[in-house]
Amino acid sequence: MEEFKKIAVLGGGSWATAIVKMLCENMQEVGWYMRSDYAIEHIKRNDHNPSYLQGVEFDTSKLKLSSNINEIVGYADVCIFAIPSAFLYKELEPLTVSFEGKTVVSAIKGIVPETGLIVGEHFSKHYDIDLEDIGVITGPCHAEEVALERLSYLTVAFANEEKAAALAEKFQSDYINCKISDDIIGTEYAAVLKNIYAIAAGIAHGLGYGDNFQSVLMSNAIREMKRYIKKVHKMKRNINDSAYLGDLLVTGYSVFSRNRLFGNMLGKGYTVRSAQLEMSMIAEGYYATKSAYEINQEHGAKTPILNAVYDILYENKNPKKVFKKLAEKLD
Amino acid sequence: MEEFKKIAVLGGGSWATAIVKMLCENMQEVGWYMRSDYAIEHIKRNDHNPSYLQGVEFDTSKLKLSSNINEIVGYADVCIFAIPSAFLYKELEPLTVSFEGKTVVSAIKGIVPETGLIVGEHFSKHYDIDLEDIGVITGPCHAEEVALERLSYLTVAFANEEKAAALAEKFQSDYINCKISDDIIGTEYAAVLKNIYAIAAGIAHGLGYGDNFQSVLMSNAIREMKRYIKKVHKMKRNINDSAYLGDLLVTGYSVFSRNRLFGNMLGKGYTVRSAQLEMSMIAEGYYATKSAYEINQEHGAKTPILNAVYDILYENKNPKKVFKKLAEKLD
Repeated sequence: MEEFKKIAVLGGGSWATAIVKMLCENMQEVGWYMRSDYAIEHIKRNDHNPSYLQGVEFDTSKLKLSSNINEIVGYADVCIFAIPSAFLYKELEPLTVSFEGKTVVSAIKGIVPETGLIVGEHFSKHYDIDLEDIGVITGPCHAEEVALERLSYLTVAFANEEKAAALAEKFQSDYINCKISDDIIGTEYAAVLKNIYAIAAGIAHGLGYGDNFQSVLMSNAIREMKRYIKKVHKMKRNINDSAYLGDLLVTGYSVFSRNRLFGNMLGKGYTVRSAQLEMSMIAEGYYATKSAYEINQEHGAKTPILNAVYDILYENKNPKKVFKKLAEKLD
Repeated sequence: MEEFKKIAVLGGGSWATAIVKMLCENMQEVGWYMRSDYAIEHIKRNDHNPSYLQGVEFDTSKLKLSSNINEIVGYADVCIFAIPSAFLYKELEPLTVSFEGKTVVSAIKGIVPETGLIVGEHFSKHYDIDLEDIGVITGPCHAEEVALERLSYLTVAFANEEKAAALAEKFQSDYINCKISDDIIGTEYAAVLKNIYAIAAGIAHGLGYGDNFQSVLMSNAIREMKRYIKKVHKMKRNINDSAYLGDLLVTGYSVFSRNRLFGNMLGKGYTVRSAQLEMSMIAEGYYATKSAYEINQEHGAKTPILNAVYDILYENKNPKKVFKKLAEKLD
């Protein structure tokens, strides 16, 4: 049985913070890389992240904190990345330490804009990591509820389920039920696509569509997600498992989702640019829409919702008109 | 092609009122039975139902209103029932007019407590109506949003899809997309079960579980619904169609759902009896839980959520303990 002794989390946001918290329930030491020296100093002095999930108190004697990515990657045998995909490429630039012999796990729900790849594939192709050594951690899981220790379910996916089980064990606790899967491609695409569907839900809400429409949109979204993922990576999966449908719902129905909020502003009449300026956090679905759309140009899955969001975000089409047409295609 | 010329709606609540409104968009006359003479007089004088969807204004010259069920059934070639299932048996007692040559449609989401049957089966068995002449109208559709003319989707199901199409046409309008299905058993069971899952969602919320858990609960509920319906009536269906998953979501995520509210009170510590007394409207899921549970005793589908709700409602079990055990079974 695989055993992971040195785990590190890379990222300083709310999801990274939640992951460190979960790991600290089971580990004597957790490596934690973040860019900001200020945040590191603040955590060391005040036992909590200054900017995200401030209510989570850490036993700092367990944390191996560093703003040097090479130090943390060098330390760990498992590197869990929770850096927004839009920044990943840049944050990895200073990396000189090799991933050889290490396991790399994506807790990122996005596509790397520079390469158009989901994070697992990006690591595999650009860092020459065997797919066996790539894993995915996915929700449905708002970091804020992990902070409150509200019962949440995670899914850890590896091609090798024993490896998944070994990492899942490190997350399991009173408030976390950690499931395993062998669908590393599908779970990651699901996590990417759900942000796009959350934008669609937000646009609909902003345009004045109600709960009846929202439920139809989500029921079409899960069928679209199934078609999309099947084209990208065909295998036996139940699209209604928590890692797919649950993840879609927790985001699509969340009033706190940045992606949904972003969509809502577009539906209310903001331009894409002005909506982006208003938001202080990145809506990952914005980048994901372009990449997912382009990837699908090769595969040709029927994706009316993705296409509608793409048209609004990148073709400057009128949200009201686009959604009127989309509504006719839904069933 | 089948054509329906005289359609009547039976029931005086919000869903009946919404159905009459939708039909009035396409029909010159709509029959409407309700028990209350007071309500009928009020509608005739003030153009709106005094107790439900008061914002909906009727052209009363189109309405053939009566509190005499025999008059309205005698008038119609299609009788659409929208009476809460708990009252249906009693309201049908004065009926002497035969359904021969008529089509009977259930817009009721419940099980008739006196016979333990879903409404379509109840009519078929107790009124000797051919299953070909039985139809179902289902959501996802809050009546309140129909009142506001917010785009909503309905599904009309008949064994014969031509018949479904003929009735669907009468509902289609600027704000209604009406789909058809040949799954009269499955769509009706879905409408019944979703109320039970909405009670479960309410209990979870009342107990303090958060959005992460809710999404896992819903993703398990749709899989449970699939297993349940498959045992009752095996046929090819996509459980993620709007009539199943959409209907589950619009209810399970609604803060206005009576069933969810009822569950929420149980989760907060109300007894079943006191929660019922506090509520002025019937939570159909209460009765449905018992019937659905008993029906499943024959079939043996794996239904941990239904069983949990049953234990709380009928076995006086502690919601907190029951949900702690349930949470371990979900994935």
